[in-house]
Amino acid sequence: MRMYDILQKKRMGEPLTREEITFFVRGYTDGTIPDYQASAFTMAVCCRGMNEKETADLTEAMMHSGDTVDLSMFGDRSVDKHSTGGVGDKTTMILAPIVASLGGKVAKMTGRGLGHTGGTLDKLESIPGFRTTLTADEFISHIDKIGMAVIGQSGELAPADKKLYALRDVTATVDCIPLIASSIMSKKLAAGSHSIVLDVKVGSGAFMKTVEEGRTLARAMIDVGEACGHKVRALVTNMDAPLGMCIGNALEVKEAVAVLRGEQKDALYDICVELATNMISLSLSLPMEESRRQVVEAIDSGRAYDKMKEWIAAQGGDVAAIDDLTRLPTATILHEVKAPCDGYLAHMDTESVGISASLLGAGRIEKDDVIDYSAGIVLQKKTGDRISSGDVLAVLHTTDAGRIPAAEAKFLSALTYSDSPVTPEPTVHCIL
Amino acid sequence: MRMYDILQKKRMGEPLTREEITFFVRGYTDGTIPDYQASAFTMAVCCRGMNEKETADLTEAMMHSGDTVDLSMFGDRSVDKHSTGGVGDKTTMILAPIVASLGGKVAKMTGRGLGHTGGTLDKLESIPGFRTTLTADEFISHIDKIGMAVIGQSGELAPADKKLYALRDVTATVDCIPLIASSIMSKKLAAGSHSIVLDVKVGSGAFMKTVEEGRTLARAMIDVGEACGHKVRALVTNMDAPLGMCIGNALEVKEAVAVLRGEQKDALYDICVELATNMISLSLSLPMEESRRQVVEAIDSGRAYDKMKEWIAAQGGDVAAIDDLTRLPTATILHEVKAPCDGYLAHMDTESVGISASLLGAGRIEKDDVIDYSAGIVLQKKTGDRISSGDVLAVLHTTDAGRIPAAEAKFLSALTYSDSPVTPEPTVHCIL
Repeated sequence: MRMYDILQKKRMGEPLTREEITFFVRGYTDGTIPDYQASAFTMAVCCRGMNEKETADLTEAMMHSGDTVDLSMFGDRSVDKHSTGGVGDKTTMILAPIVASLGGKVAKMTGRGLGHTGGTLDKLESIPGFRTTLTADEFISHIDKIGMAVIGQSGELAPADKKLYALRDVTATVDCIPLIASSIMSKKLAAGSHSIVLDVKVGSGAFMKTVEEGRTLARAMIDVGEACGHKVRALVTNMDAPLGMCIGNALEVKEAVAVLRGEQKDALYDICVELATNMISLSLSLPMEESRRQVVEAIDSGRAYDKMKEWIAAQGGDVAAIDDLTRLPTATILHEVKAPCDGYLAHMDTESVGISASLLGAGRIEKDDVIDYSAGIVLQKKTGDRISSGDVLAVLHTTDAGRIPAAEAKFLSALTYSDSPVTPEPTVHCIL
Repeated sequence: MRMYDILQKKRMGEPLTREEITFFVRGYTDGTIPDYQASAFTMAVCCRGMNEKETADLTEAMMHSGDTVDLSMFGDRSVDKHSTGGVGDKTTMILAPIVASLGGKVAKMTGRGLGHTGGTLDKLESIPGFRTTLTADEFISHIDKIGMAVIGQSGELAPADKKLYALRDVTATVDCIPLIASSIMSKKLAAGSHSIVLDVKVGSGAFMKTVEEGRTLARAMIDVGEACGHKVRALVTNMDAPLGMCIGNALEVKEAVAVLRGEQKDALYDICVELATNMISLSLSLPMEESRRQVVEAIDSGRAYDKMKEWIAAQGGDVAAIDDLTRLPTATILHEVKAPCDGYLAHMDTESVGISASLLGAGRIEKDDVIDYSAGIVLQKKTGDRISSGDVLAVLHTTDAGRIPAAEAKFLSALTYSDSPVTPEPTVHCIL
């Protein structure tokens, strides 16, 4: 088999066989196929597409390129959630305890933040003592006993995807549905959970700009997962605004706690209930209505909040800092951003809000930047709100006053105003 | 400007600006744009195409990537011919003396053979003493005094094309009209002639398999040349059979001499008259009919043959070996290939015939192979001929008997037979 012939075939729009796709993935991973052939391949796929079967074959080949996690001991109960990335997305910290408290098994591997998006690992490390590294045995034992564990990626999951993604990133071949779907799903399948709930974000802060694009990606990922024998559901959700009111690591832990305590019942609460309902429905094979009832009950009864504390304690975190949130990292400088005009808040460019938080110290602009866990933004107004000139739009949190001007300018640049009332987008567009 | 954005744009099928194309060509030539971005670029062009203007811009950018030959001292009289490659193609040795004898200026840079195609340089070097290297001053002076010179490429013409072609060759992005057109034309334009006659071959031994494909490529090359201010004409000719009866270096010199002496008036003669007529018509701005009359007269009068000898003498070749062709390298072993059946010769796979000649020693299978100038094939039958079992189809020439079996098998594998009469394809399909 020759890579040349595979390129020629895909260039002409013909579907590739499983053997051809596997040949490419193996060869690219072991270095026998050079970058310049791989980039020609991804460009041909971008231009000519891939059918469902090809996408599933690519996903499986990439999944098998490295380590895989065995969760078979948990039968159908293991369930994972994947978000295509967002600003202010603290849903993992909320969902996992809810699902674990109801009998689901959440084996979560997660990442760090870069650029405008935060990472769950960074958020958890703002809790004093929290360990994001566990041995393989500890990981499985925690899931068995507590029902959940959240760690940084251990071993090498889907290294083929990692190498290919780095190449796509410099050859303008990232935003291609079959390549995105196989990239995400290869890692998810390698992570071992039987059921997967996907949160596909659409809007200014997301890869997919429209609901229709989001639906197409969601459909492709469901097809791949099902072709590989998994249960998959997808929610297409709005990312035209940050998720919740808080952006920044310790700030987001605080907000997650508020939701789990039942103190905050807003759009963030709604989306968490919706995602958790789908996770429970899949992992426990329950009807949606019954799943939803149990999820609401888990929050209202305090069971989910107790599960959160049990989990944090198990991973070495200081539970006292959860009961008393003032013990979490706290900013020394608070700066109010004031509305420059009267009107309605028409739109927030989520990416710019995320960058503003990074500029305050909450995230990494460059890979090696050190994070200020206390830094971030607490929104006071959301899209659709009526505002008057001088109203506080948000409070910027930091420990370095020098960071305020650039962050404030970036934040203000994210906002647009309208003279007439604005109806915000729904939080969940559709469920597939 | 970023290569990433150029890739994204072409991937989406948008036309690129002259600045973007120049940025790519410069960056790829100087190494600041890596292979993996260049291959993604060529694949995107293969899938999305390039319009006339983009193709002309790419051609000019590649032409300006290296040395260019200045022939402006010859005004409109300089004229070049380019063939897209063939088997048994000795037209340069015939055309150039005809055109030079009539007042055209032929500044020809040509190449060596590889694989199944021969190269004019190798053919000329079968003439004892012939020098294919001249200084730049000698080159111009010969053209000025004799009207022609034929040398190996001197300096570095269109190095961007050379680098890009090597990459296309391993990424399945060779057979793409805008890329082929710009590749050929960048070298032709760098070689400096004001007028260019293109011989676009179609058939089994050529890149372009159908007349329609050949027409499309011819049209693209004419558009590029004209956009760059040159006069261009193209003939789409048949390569479903070798050109002439001889394949092999000294054998082809002998056949060229026969045509120039007016001794051989067959399909090879016809195509040479047609090509020379177009070259004269462009370089001397004469009507086609008058040009054709002069070309025929140049052969019949012996003027063209005399010019050939003048040219060969000027480049150090032994003219006595032209007057007495037995003094050219001559094979010691002649082997007759016999027809295995009765019928009509329906088709000759030109590529296989070319490889058969290489196996006899006439060409290079690998780049460093040494050529046997006497080796080759003299056809006795052509497509369409009635044959009887045992008829001599061809005579194989070599100096190494061990080469015969493989060459004979390859030659026979090239032929197909028919029980019913076969009409051979016309030599010239069309002129654009």
